[in-house]
Amino acid sequence: MTRRTLKLGLVTMGAGGPGQHNRWLDPDIPADASVNIRWYIEQVRKAEAAKFDFVFIVDSQFITKDSPPHYLNRLEPLTLLSALATATSHIGLVGTLTTSFNSPFNLARRLASLDLISGGRAGWNVVTSGDPGAAGNFGLDEHYDYETRYGRAFEYIDVVQGLWRSYEDDAFPRDRETGVFLDPAKLHALNHKGKYFSVTGPLNLQRSPQGQPVIFQAGDSDHGRNLGAQTADAIFTHSASIEDGRAFKQDITRRAVAAGRGADDVLILPGVSIYVGDTDEDARRIETEYRRADHSFEQALGELGRSFGWHDFRQYDLDAPFPAETLEHARRSFFTQAQRIVELARKDDLTLRQTVEVLSASRGSPFVGSAETVANEIIRWFEGGALDGLNVMLGHPDQFDRFLNEVVPILQARGVYRSEYEDTTLRGNLGLPKPANIRAEAPASPTARREEPALAVS
Amino acid sequence: MTRRTLKLGLVTMGAGGPGQHNRWLDPDIPADASVNIRWYIEQVRKAEAAKFDFVFIVDSQFITKDSPPHYLNRLEPLTLLSALATATSHIGLVGTLTTSFNSPFNLARRLASLDLISGGRAGWNVVTSGDPGAAGNFGLDEHYDYETRYGRAFEYIDVVQGLWRSYEDDAFPRDRETGVFLDPAKLHALNHKGKYFSVTGPLNLQRSPQGQPVIFQAGDSDHGRNLGAQTADAIFTHSASIEDGRAFKQDITRRAVAAGRGADDVLILPGVSIYVGDTDEDARRIETEYRRADHSFEQALGELGRSFGWHDFRQYDLDAPFPAETLEHARRSFFTQAQRIVELARKDDLTLRQTVEVLSASRGSPFVGSAETVANEIIRWFEGGALDGLNVMLGHPDQFDRFLNEVVPILQARGVYRSEYEDTTLRGNLGLPKPANIRAEAPASPTARREEPALAVS
Repeated sequence: MTRRTLKLGLVTMGAGGPGQHNRWLDPDIPADASVNIRWYIEQVRKAEAAKFDFVFIVDSQFITKDSPPHYLNRLEPLTLLSALATATSHIGLVGTLTTSFNSPFNLARRLASLDLISGGRAGWNVVTSGDPGAAGNFGLDEHYDYETRYGRAFEYIDVVQGLWRSYEDDAFPRDRETGVFLDPAKLHALNHKGKYFSVTGPLNLQRSPQGQPVIFQAGDSDHGRNLGAQTADAIFTHSASIEDGRAFKQDITRRAVAAGRGADDVLILPGVSIYVGDTDEDARRIETEYRRADHSFEQALGELGRSFGWHDFRQYDLDAPFPAETLEHARRSFFTQAQRIVELARKDDLTLRQTVEVLSASRGSPFVGSAETVANEIIRWFEGGALDGLNVMLGHPDQFDRFLNEVVPILQARGVYRSEYEDTTLRGNLGLPKPANIRAEAPASPTARREEPALAVS
Repeated sequence: MTRRTLKLGLVTMGAGGPGQHNRWLDPDIPADASVNIRWYIEQVRKAEAAKFDFVFIVDSQFITKDSPPHYLNRLEPLTLLSALATATSHIGLVGTLTTSFNSPFNLARRLASLDLISGGRAGWNVVTSGDPGAAGNFGLDEHYDYETRYGRAFEYIDVVQGLWRSYEDDAFPRDRETGVFLDPAKLHALNHKGKYFSVTGPLNLQRSPQGQPVIFQAGDSDHGRNLGAQTADAIFTHSASIEDGRAFKQDITRRAVAAGRGADDVLILPGVSIYVGDTDEDARRIETEYRRADHSFEQALGELGRSFGWHDFRQYDLDAPFPAETLEHARRSFFTQAQRIVELARKDDLTLRQTVEVLSASRGSPFVGSAETVANEIIRWFEGGALDGLNVMLGHPDQFDRFLNEVVPILQARGVYRSEYEDTTLRGNLGLPKPANIRAEAPASPTARREEPALAVS
């Protein structure tokens, strides 16, 4: 296989995102950007003009009056991406959808529908939801525990991919001469009965031009990494340094190979903020200014709660040692992240105030400088085996424009990044193979084995 | 309130629909129309150019190899309508979504999202699903019984509308001077705990320009009629004659008034096929030809099974009396419809073959003739109190064009139908009031009462 080029995704949550509570104050951004379809279309068309691989939509399902602005009011990923599908032509459409609070049949069907509507550009970012409050919106007294969340996720992906194999590629002759619409031998029920799910199938949708939506994954715990290594086509992560990135990529590759996959089967795509200035110093000044404007200490204190099930840290003495007992609140939330924060505070004997400050400072981007500096750094990470591409976190429009107009042309001139789309599908542009047709598949996975003896439904 | 004008909706399932198994054979229609977004956009833009109120998407969740073509492979309504939202500007977007197999929080959120994306054009056709096979796709051993299906539906609508009232109209000042994004006193949790659902809320989406999506309903059983009369803004029905239509409208009005609603609160919109010819005789010839081409006796026999949970009637002697014992299979399906078929056969001692033939013949449209004849008949029904508008079932493209180009101008010239949209929202065009802001509401409904004491979530 020829060397892949660098992949680029755009992560947008309207105006703002983690650490960007005040982004809506910027007069260059509509204050209602998170529910403004025109704004989304404008940003995504810019990314498409620059030949980005995909736009990536994050999600959440629970709010309180204390939630950050970008949580309070946001378009649902599936409806948003479907609306973007008819306003774009080549860019991939990746939505965050939780395995904890959607039925697998509906999710499989809606993603397959988006995939057909977009001509093979759909992607699914698989999450298990780290917000315990969301459970109450779905009839649960409390959120699933960690083992259950991931047990469900593994089985869930298996079910969804099984449903996506309901029809073989050539199931619909639609031959007007012979009057044959469907070849019934090419329709397969799933008849899945597992620990968590029971789904008969088949799905009432043909395969898309890319075979199946592309699977993204973002969890960073041990189970999360296994889920990504075993099932995902691409992983959305965070890397503070080239060494971090390389270690993460090696860890995922090791887990993927151990699961019988190829070393190149999983793309590693860290999410990054990028700051471009006239000079390196100018860029650092811009970063400092934007980050200072983006959120206050109070807001950072609030956002600290996210990994701890949105536990309210305002109740503690800011100048007392970090309250490590709060880790208990993270049990059904982002426990791995919370654990790292508690460790960090313990190691250096930090107060709560210091912990918030250190975490804010650690958000500093490794990609800050003149266009030349940023391009060089991206290429160094890419060629150094620390990433396969970047998920560019949409910042200030002016900065996004500078990245597109100044950095991207350098990446293209160096032959690292495309100047034209190679394909019309997301899978094709990412350089991923189209999943084999059901009949051509070796019975390698449990799902494939389960499907082999299944007869066409009667 | 001034007299409303006639409302028009377009019902489309790609190529084909009930009784239209062979529509895909027509060379003027793409054979893959049911999954062809370009075809949908083309039809819906035609309807929008003719100032139709809405496009209406039907749905189903279960197939076998014997399912009619339009069931086998179809885009999911929410994703399809979201894709149509950005390809249109004024037409309403009404999707069929079942209360039996969606969680109310996800459904409320996705419809609210579509409503915002489209600028206030979303509608929800509430169904409880009459296909027992669908249950197996959602982890159930069998479908809910009739009482449970409707018990859930009543509570479900209450929950969804409650979630749609999470924010007051002016909850988001987004004031850059004062830095106030949200007025937290205008965010309300739902805290619903009912017989079937437990949903805390609030929903993470602001109200749309039309306040809430418009509620459509289509069930025709006793509980179905009550559900429509008590909760719906519009009812999709079938009427064979002006007398039928008038009786249905009076029945719904009576039930609505008994539930404390106004006599004009529920629009009655029968679904109709329309055949336009150069003369009345020419139109009757066209109808006969199309109906003959649309399905064979074998296909009509298969479709008879729909009301009986897709029971296979091919196993019975065609020339023996209609097998009335099959009614048992309709218990968790469209029981009222099945009951009517059994009654029909019993009354006239029909064989199975005769029953299929009589049912096929009864599909004859009351709106067949020259453009003048069809327009006159529509006006007669409208002014005679038998309908508030029509759901035009998309037939052959040539016939749709004739309706748009020949019949609609007559309706406009007679002042019965609009020449320009009155509003940008579906609710506005249908002449329905915008649901009151939460604070302005009298605590009339159980939901409103439940919400009054609810505090802003903490």
